[in-house]
Amino acid sequence: MSRISGDEMYAFIAALYPICRSITGNGVRATLEQVKQYIPLSVHEVPSGTPVFDWTVPKEWNITDAYIKNADGEKIVDFQHCNLHVVNYSVPVKQKLSLAELKPHLFTIPQHPQWIPYRTSYYNETWGFCLSHQQFLQLHEDEYEVCIESSLTNGNLTYGEYLLQGETDEEVLITCHVCHPSLCNDNLSGIAVATMLARALGQQQRRYSYRFLFLPGTIGALTWLASHEAQVDRIKHGFVLAGVGDKGHLSYKRSRQGTAAIDRVFAHVLSRSGNAYEIIDFSPYGYDERQFCSPGFNLPVGCFMRTPFDRYPEYHTSADNLTFVDPQSLADSLATCFQVCSVLEDNLTYMSLNPKGEPQLGKRGLYRPIGGTPPPDGVDGLVLLWVLNLSDGQHSLLDIAERAKCNFADVNEATKLLVKHGLLQQCEERVR
Amino acid sequence: MSRISGDEMYAFIAALYPICRSITGNGVRATLEQVKQYIPLSVHEVPSGTPVFDWTVPKEWNITDAYIKNADGEKIVDFQHCNLHVVNYSVPVKQKLSLAELKPHLFTIPQHPQWIPYRTSYYNETWGFCLSHQQFLQLHEDEYEVCIESSLTNGNLTYGEYLLQGETDEEVLITCHVCHPSLCNDNLSGIAVATMLARALGQQQRRYSYRFLFLPGTIGALTWLASHEAQVDRIKHGFVLAGVGDKGHLSYKRSRQGTAAIDRVFAHVLSRSGNAYEIIDFSPYGYDERQFCSPGFNLPVGCFMRTPFDRYPEYHTSADNLTFVDPQSLADSLATCFQVCSVLEDNLTYMSLNPKGEPQLGKRGLYRPIGGTPPPDGVDGLVLLWVLNLSDGQHSLLDIAERAKCNFADVNEATKLLVKHGLLQQCEERVR
Amino acid sequence: MSRISGDEMYAFIAALYPICRSITGNGVRATLEQVKQYIPLSVHEVPSGTPVFDWTVPKEWNITDAYIKNADGEKIVDFQHCNLHVVNYSVPVKQKLSLAELKPHLFTIPQHPQWIPYRTSYYNETWGFCLSHQQFLQLHEDEYEVCIESSLTNGNLTYGEYLLQGETDEEVLITCHVCHPSLCNDNLSGIAVATMLARALGQQQRRYSYRFLFLPGTIGALTWLASHEAQVDRIKHGFVLAGVGDKGHLSYKRSRQGTAAIDRVFAHVLSRSGNAYEIIDFSPYGYDERQFCSPGFNLPVGCFMRTPFDRYPEYHTSADNLTFVDPQSLADSLATCFQVCSVLEDNLTYMSLNPKGEPQLGKRGLYRPIGGTPPPDGVDGLVLLWVLNLSDGQHSLLDIAERAKCNFADVNEATKLLVKHGLLQQCEERVR
Repeated sequence: MSRISGDEMYAFIAALYPICRSITGNGVRATLEQVKQYIPLSVHEVPSGTPVFDWTVPKEWNITDAYIKNADGEKIVDFQHCNLHVVNYSVPVKQKLSLAELKPHLFTIPQHPQWIPYRTSYYNETWGFCLSHQQFLQLHEDEYEVCIESSLTNGNLTYGEYLLQGETDEEVLITCHVCHPSLCNDNLSGIAVATMLARALGQQQRRYSYRFLFLPGTIGALTWLASHEAQVDRIKHGFVLAGVGDKGHLSYKRSRQGTAAIDRVFAHVLSRSGNAYEIIDFSPYGYDERQFCSPGFNLPVGCFMRTPFDRYPEYHTSADNLTFVDPQSLADSLATCFQVCSVLEDNLTYMSLNPKGEPQLGKRGLYRPIGGTPPPDGVDGLVLLWVLNLSDGQHSLLDIAERAKCNFADVNEATKLLVKHGLLQQCEERVR
Repeated sequence: MSRISGDEMYAFIAALYPICRSITGNGVRATLEQVKQYIPLSVHEVPSGTPVFDWTVPKEWNITDAYIKNADGEKIVDFQHCNLHVVNYSVPVKQKLSLAELKPHLFTIPQHPQWIPYRTSYYNETWGFCLSHQQFLQLHEDEYEVCIESSLTNGNLTYGEYLLQGETDEEVLITCHVCHPSLCNDNLSGIAVATMLARALGQQQRRYSYRFLFLPGTIGALTWLASHEAQVDRIKHGFVLAGVGDKGHLSYKRSRQGTAAIDRVFAHVLSRSGNAYEIIDFSPYGYDERQFCSPGFNLPVGCFMRTPFDRYPEYHTSADNLTFVDPQSLADSLATCFQVCSVLEDNLTYMSLNPKGEPQLGKRGLYRPIGGTPPPDGVDGLVLLWVLNLSDGQHSLLDIAERAKCNFADVNEATKLLVKHGLLQQCEERVR
Repeated sequence: MSRISGDEMYAFIAALYPICRSITGNGVRATLEQVKQYIPLSVHEVPSGTPVFDWTVPKEWNITDAYIKNADGEKIVDFQHCNLHVVNYSVPVKQKLSLAELKPHLFTIPQHPQWIPYRTSYYNETWGFCLSHQQFLQLHEDEYEVCIESSLTNGNLTYGEYLLQGETDEEVLITCHVCHPSLCNDNLSGIAVATMLARALGQQQRRYSYRFLFLPGTIGALTWLASHEAQVDRIKHGFVLAGVGDKGHLSYKRSRQGTAAIDRVFAHVLSRSGNAYEIIDFSPYGYDERQFCSPGFNLPVGCFMRTPFDRYPEYHTSADNLTFVDPQSLADSLATCFQVCSVLEDNLTYMSLNPKGEPQLGKRGLYRPIGGTPPPDGVDGLVLLWVLNLSDGQHSLLDIAERAKCNFADVNEATKLLVKHGLLQQCEERVR
């Protein structure tokens, strides 16, 4: 783990940044191709028109160029400078219009006059341009030429999938959305962290299987769920990765279940990180946890973020750029994910083999030789006693860490020591 | 609802104010006769001596006149001026006494020297007078003549009942006590609000049946329960109305069950009213909820008040008069009751017909066309998502409103919209 | 109860103070012999080498003398002055050493330079001396003679037991440790309070049987448990008595179960004492509750203390002497234990014989004759109503006291009054 630096993730984000992504099309394909440089991703193509629950896979959208020219033929808005300039999924257009005719197709952010907004129109065939409010205010009566060289045709929806098989078929689902164009935190950060987490977990022994999905938002999650309904029961834990590169505090949004193991593990890890953090109750607005937590699935899937999306003004604007994310935050997010997975892996239940009274730790060298001093030496002695006291087959190591108010890692270490000394035995059943 | 004004209730209270009521007798009959001007009340008469559980219906009490004269023949205390002057249920008396002999029969409130207290002696045959402490201090050694022209004879206990049949036989029980003489808040306010609520509900479609009882306190509730034991299981919700005309904040005292639907509904409605309010735990002292919540019945019946009776000094004194209640407070109390009944009526459980993933709201015009802006437009979009997410047949609309932290009315409106679009179906079973 | 004064317990402590106790040996025997002056204790001897779960009863340790002499032949450390000077369970030694050779065998408390620490080495055969840091600093290069006249031989572990048979075989277990030498609060205070509590309970009628154990810490508890496994199911409640003589506030450490009746009873009694108190969650470090609450037993046994042992610096030092405990604190601790036992005894469940509506209290003289005054007269009237309302066979008197937020004693008194009037009947089943 320690060798994966934030710099590598940051460089990966920088490489992905220029690509114009959408929920379908070549931008997603190019992105997944780059993910493949780190992990052996399978890329799936699902044809336009495929029904997925209440939805239908849309036509595939691609774009090569777009601009607005003034009467002097100057490009005053140019897709080549920034792909946010075009409303994502705009239909092709080439025509001349007056300013009055143009205005309904323009989107700006008056509160942040230098930023270009990000807008989409996936399921409503129209076209539009996004520009800074500064640019907008300079427009005057003129004849404008608008041109969008895009295509909206039968094609495919593309997503990436990577299954890291573990000792069991029980799965941890980790997903990120890959449909946003040049926006760094939302969600090149999620793509980068998911990729590097997958690579790191691939180098470890794993009790769980880990399924990584790189999905177009909403329709991608629905498409995967629709074609994998029979196997969703394998998913025992999961989280969505989104907005994990900004400099804000760590946040975790609970699953709809609210008290699932994944919810408790994130709460434990974040609460003991020593840094500011936030635990947010589930709500049905947000990222793809909306789909995984829909009532027909109700999967134990939360969402891991840094600053929640509705709290930073740079969200869905050109200000979510390469200066908005930083290597250190990315590394911190990745380390947290890895720690969460470690807790999931190690969260087993044990049975004390000397349940009646305490075992004699002294004769095993696990207790100080001269008695009478107040509490046990350091926290370790007390953790040993907690593990012995609660290992009755009913308490997982996380239960013990929560009740003893100590770090899972310390409980896990104490457990290993006690197993080594023949004082504990792992229970066969899987932990809740 | 909006056409029922506080003025009408206030005028009704003013008309009822002069009547000398008690737990039996013509005062109750005259009161119920006036209620009949608004709703078709049935009036029931239960003979003295009828056993009701541990109690017996007492003799009927009536009174025509009472006074204390001084030796000069001046009436210094006169029932005709204020019916509180006589201890309610005083036996007839006509005799001359010294001041020393008279004093044990006199009741005053030294802390409020201008107010006349209200006292009763229903089950202990005696007589007495209540007077202001000012009057009391002016008494000097003299020969006094006391006269109470009352009768205490075998007769009847009288109560009023009005059943508004709904689509089902499941009942909401709404009661008020009608036994207090000239006291406005306690409980002409309850009588007025109950009457107007009954009239208003009568003009609505109703899922529930509503049973209104106008009862002499304690013995009236016991008498009704004793003669209707076989049907109390129909009562699914209920509340007692008492002290709902003063200018203080709204209060609701929970049923003995504590988490009954009626308890949750009042808590929801009061907490979202925007005004100060109070939720009070059940205790076995108070109004007739004491009987409905006795362990042998344990009905889900709370008590709706404004200022709790033990918090205002005017309680059970002549200061609880027509200036102590006001039309606006009465209207607010009535509107709250009506709103509570509306929530009870609409608190059903639904099942999403597209439980796997979110349904596509956009194609139904239920979602904004241009995506990418932060949260859904207004609160409505989020409420739609909450209703869809929690409509799994396990959550009532109140459950959803509580979890989504929004108004029941908004949840109900969103539900109707989703039903109209074929996205939700009502579950057959009745909601808890 | 009132006749047992703190002075008697203080004098008892003073008599026990000089004895050099350990986990085995004549000090324990002498101590139990003194307890016998108050209660007819049975004394049990368990041979060295007896296996008890993961442990073995150790050799018996006795000591007659010990000292350190300097080269001038002066005793600079002398067991006859204070038995804490010898590390408890030191093996016999007689030899001459340099200061450098001596130092590893010396223990002091630098933060409290005048106090002698208490140290033990039960399961690691070694020897040592404890002295004040002041004494230690005066040591200089010299030839020292150390002498410990102790014996560590096959013998017995000794403990005392006293069963007060009650009407039923269900037991309340009350234990204290008897293994510490001249330390007053820890735990001559526990021995004194346990002894006087046993004597007092012996003079009462008892529903429960009370088992008092005077045990060497840890190994004594394990030894008793190992030889009484078949009967531990009888133990329905219990507490360990330790450190109950200091001037600090009362503390109760919950059992591992956390919500056992004993935990609720102590919380009730302490919270209503009117004095500062503390309720501490269970943790697996402390006194013999560690053994009783080990996962294989998980008995409802808490620990009653005054200042918790890890909060006073005098703990396990010579400063825990006769000035550290006082008669008043001892009397307060004893009275609290007695009150807890009274609540356990009286915590039954009753059934109202008039569950439908309230019974008519007035005709039984249990209610004021003139009605209309605000709440019932005094708290008693309300307590009567609470007991009647909650006596449905599902609520114990403690449940009622907790919900009514009043003293158990008031609830109990109201219950007796209602039973006397034929309004309540005790349920046959035993209360949780």
